[in-house]
Amino acid sequence: MADEKKTQAGDDMAEKLSRKIKNLDAVFKPSSIAVIGASMEPNKIGHVIVKNFIDGGFAGKLYPINPNASQILGLKAYKSVLDVKEKIDSAVIAIPAAAVAGALEECGKKGIRGVVLITGGFSEVGKVEEEKKIAAIANKYGIALIGPNCMGVITPATRVDSVFLPIYKLGRPRVGKIAFISQSGAVGGCIVDLTARAGIGMSKFVSYGNAAVIDECDLLEYLAHRSVAKKITRKKPVVVIKAGKSAAGAEAAKSHTGSLAGAAEAYHAAFKQGRMIEAETLDELFDFAKIFDQPLPTGKRVGIITNGGGMGVLATDSLEVEKMDLAELSDETNSVLRAALPTYANVRNPLDIIGDADSHRYEIAINAMMRDQNVDVILLIILFQTIAIDSSVVNIAIRASDTRKKPIIAVCTGGEYTDMHKRILEGYGIPTYSSPSSAMRAIAKFAEYAKSRKAK
Amino acid sequence: MADEKKTQAGDDMAEKLSRKIKNLDAVFKPSSIAVIGASMEPNKIGHVIVKNFIDGGFAGKLYPINPNASQILGLKAYKSVLDVKEKIDSAVIAIPAAAVAGALEECGKKGIRGVVLITGGFSEVGKVEEEKKIAAIANKYGIALIGPNCMGVITPATRVDSVFLPIYKLGRPRVGKIAFISQSGAVGGCIVDLTARAGIGMSKFVSYGNAAVIDECDLLEYLAHRSVAKKITRKKPVVVIKAGKSAAGAEAAKSHTGSLAGAAEAYHAAFKQGRMIEAETLDELFDFAKIFDQPLPTGKRVGIITNGGGMGVLATDSLEVEKMDLAELSDETNSVLRAALPTYANVRNPLDIIGDADSHRYEIAINAMMRDQNVDVILLIILFQTIAIDSSVVNIAIRASDTRKKPIIAVCTGGEYTDMHKRILEGYGIPTYSSPSSAMRAIAKFAEYAKSRKAK
Repeated sequence: MADEKKTQAGDDMAEKLSRKIKNLDAVFKPSSIAVIGASMEPNKIGHVIVKNFIDGGFAGKLYPINPNASQILGLKAYKSVLDVKEKIDSAVIAIPAAAVAGALEECGKKGIRGVVLITGGFSEVGKVEEEKKIAAIANKYGIALIGPNCMGVITPATRVDSVFLPIYKLGRPRVGKIAFISQSGAVGGCIVDLTARAGIGMSKFVSYGNAAVIDECDLLEYLAHRSVAKKITRKKPVVVIKAGKSAAGAEAAKSHTGSLAGAAEAYHAAFKQGRMIEAETLDELFDFAKIFDQPLPTGKRVGIITNGGGMGVLATDSLEVEKMDLAELSDETNSVLRAALPTYANVRNPLDIIGDADSHRYEIAINAMMRDQNVDVILLIILFQTIAIDSSVVNIAIRASDTRKKPIIAVCTGGEYTDMHKRILEGYGIPTYSSPSSAMRAIAKFAEYAKSRKAK
Repeated sequence: MADEKKTQAGDDMAEKLSRKIKNLDAVFKPSSIAVIGASMEPNKIGHVIVKNFIDGGFAGKLYPINPNASQILGLKAYKSVLDVKEKIDSAVIAIPAAAVAGALEECGKKGIRGVVLITGGFSEVGKVEEEKKIAAIANKYGIALIGPNCMGVITPATRVDSVFLPIYKLGRPRVGKIAFISQSGAVGGCIVDLTARAGIGMSKFVSYGNAAVIDECDLLEYLAHRSVAKKITRKKPVVVIKAGKSAAGAEAAKSHTGSLAGAAEAYHAAFKQGRMIEAETLDELFDFAKIFDQPLPTGKRVGIITNGGGMGVLATDSLEVEKMDLAELSDETNSVLRAALPTYANVRNPLDIIGDADSHRYEIAINAMMRDQNVDVILLIILFQTIAIDSSVVNIAIRASDTRKKPIIAVCTGGEYTDMHKRILEGYGIPTYSSPSSAMRAIAKFAEYAKSRKAK
């Protein structure tokens, strides 16, 4: 949470604030970018950023800025943004802190509307006045400035990628629907990397660091109003994790607040009031965020399909822990299943279609639960280790999910072979979990959110 | 939990019981194995088992038993175990249920001491009498019988592998110290696969199914007294998960008990009395089990090292949740660190050695905490995404862990590059976690266990 308070509220300022948010367009979808501090040395941040833009296939114009180079990674270099004749939408700045003010002033003069300021050494090391000076310059020109002391921005769709970490160490996610913003660069980087590996899509990633100009509220406002969200009628769900809720954690985060007793409760309350979905752990943040690719459930009755009895039992246990309901299958479903499944399969919920289930048996079970009005959410447990199962079960799940009739959530626990299939499912928007308990926890949050949306 | 009650308790029976447990040696480290139901058809269980023994490099003699084949996968086949002239220690049986009694009787006559009975279709489908008959035959001969309706046994050290799932679908773990026993084949298979993928070692895996003869108590007795455990003076820790604790879950597990209200509490109490470490979820089972490769902590004061500030804050938050203590670094540690770390690093616990930390800086921090008498457990957060970090940090962690002076627990969150390094750490017995919260939860259980051992 940013600590800066907006003390001025005049009309002029309000206009600048809204301009600032509007100018975030230049950060996320620029036609041209300057990298101020572009470097020829491979281990320098300013080198990795230029390389990532080139390797990532950024389609716009790229201008390396370095007073001591004529060319960087095959691109013509400039001494200053003012030396570039063409219009520049946005800049990434990675130069020593002392030089930032001057460079930012030049950005303003050049008409650059968005800046990602990677450079650290401002308020996080006590240099509060220096940071205020930077903020003042950005505000004077209405620049949407991310940072300082941040890790950059990624927009997969536009191939904007100012994160200064090499691609072999930190994977980049495919285009998707989840926007992720993080104060902490470290935590943010982990999430980006996890997301890439899991095959989950991302619309935007922002590490906003010290939030001198653009803070998390500005970003939420921008993300809620100005992107693909317009196409969907419901407001976007926001999943949040607050680090430093405990007293010791807050102390570790060097919070300026004197006493933080009860802070955790204060945050819980604030998030609840803001209708945000609070994650208690990093795992939950990830688990909760990805479920929203599925259509909202209309209730809390879960239908469980499994090819492993023990996993069905664990899922049922966690259903009770999370206060969800075990769907009572309709008579029609029961008779369809009884006719189609082998006699040794016990037709009930959780539906154990037995370890010798093949894809066809999954198809019958999934279709029956999709039709059943008593089932609000389908929890699909697929153990890929069994002999009879093959990859086509993935297509069946995707086909059912694509009807968007009700949410399908998958649990697949295992190693390499399982992970391969999980990535395909995630690639088509079916969230996968490695245990029934983590899936059920996400389902419970999902159902709770859906209910709160209906209540409005 | 097996439901069979031992109603006979005569001396003769007691002797047979102890013989039965002793005969488990034949299951886990046989010199010769018969596969009854060996098949030439690739999709048959009896084929996969023979293939896995061959591919796995089982060094003993292998006898495929099939009345209609002369050769299977290049090995001479026999009509019955009685046709084999040489001694046979152990048999895996995968034939239709109706034929099992006859085959088992032949095993007894042949002097086979251990049997893994894969075949299902007994008490789990209501055929209780048939199962009793099987148990009676096994008990008559003192055969240590695993199953029926089980998924098999793996002993990585002896290359015994009667799990009938193909290796490309279900990975096999390396040799290690954790024994894993599971009633459920499905859950057990998942754990084996997860373990293999994570690079964690396993000493034994047993899916014991219906537990007609050998149940979980027999297995625990065998594992506690008869294996490498002798070398270590303390008793082995047992991590347990009970599926079907909830009423709905128990119903799903088709328990015969009429009312199960409060069953969860009963299990909690029983596990506590048995000094077992209870996992509430599959994730916890895995997280808790692997921490015991590390030396027991002598207290609950945690020293945290991180190259990502946000992760340190999250770790500190979870420390408070799990009621662990933040170690107060000694004056010596503080001065060593202050002299060695860059001026912008804040010397405190959690110790943020900053995003530009290289392996050398980790070495200084780890060594200082290893020496510090105020630190009982080291939580080592390594974010492999950063530019300065390279693979040598892994060697440094392993070298420190190999001194066995105090436990080192790692948190590494990320994608492919991170996973590669996690597997190396796990390979050397350093447990790795993907979030500070899951690591801290395991540390808390670990410290609690260590304390209870000391209290005895």
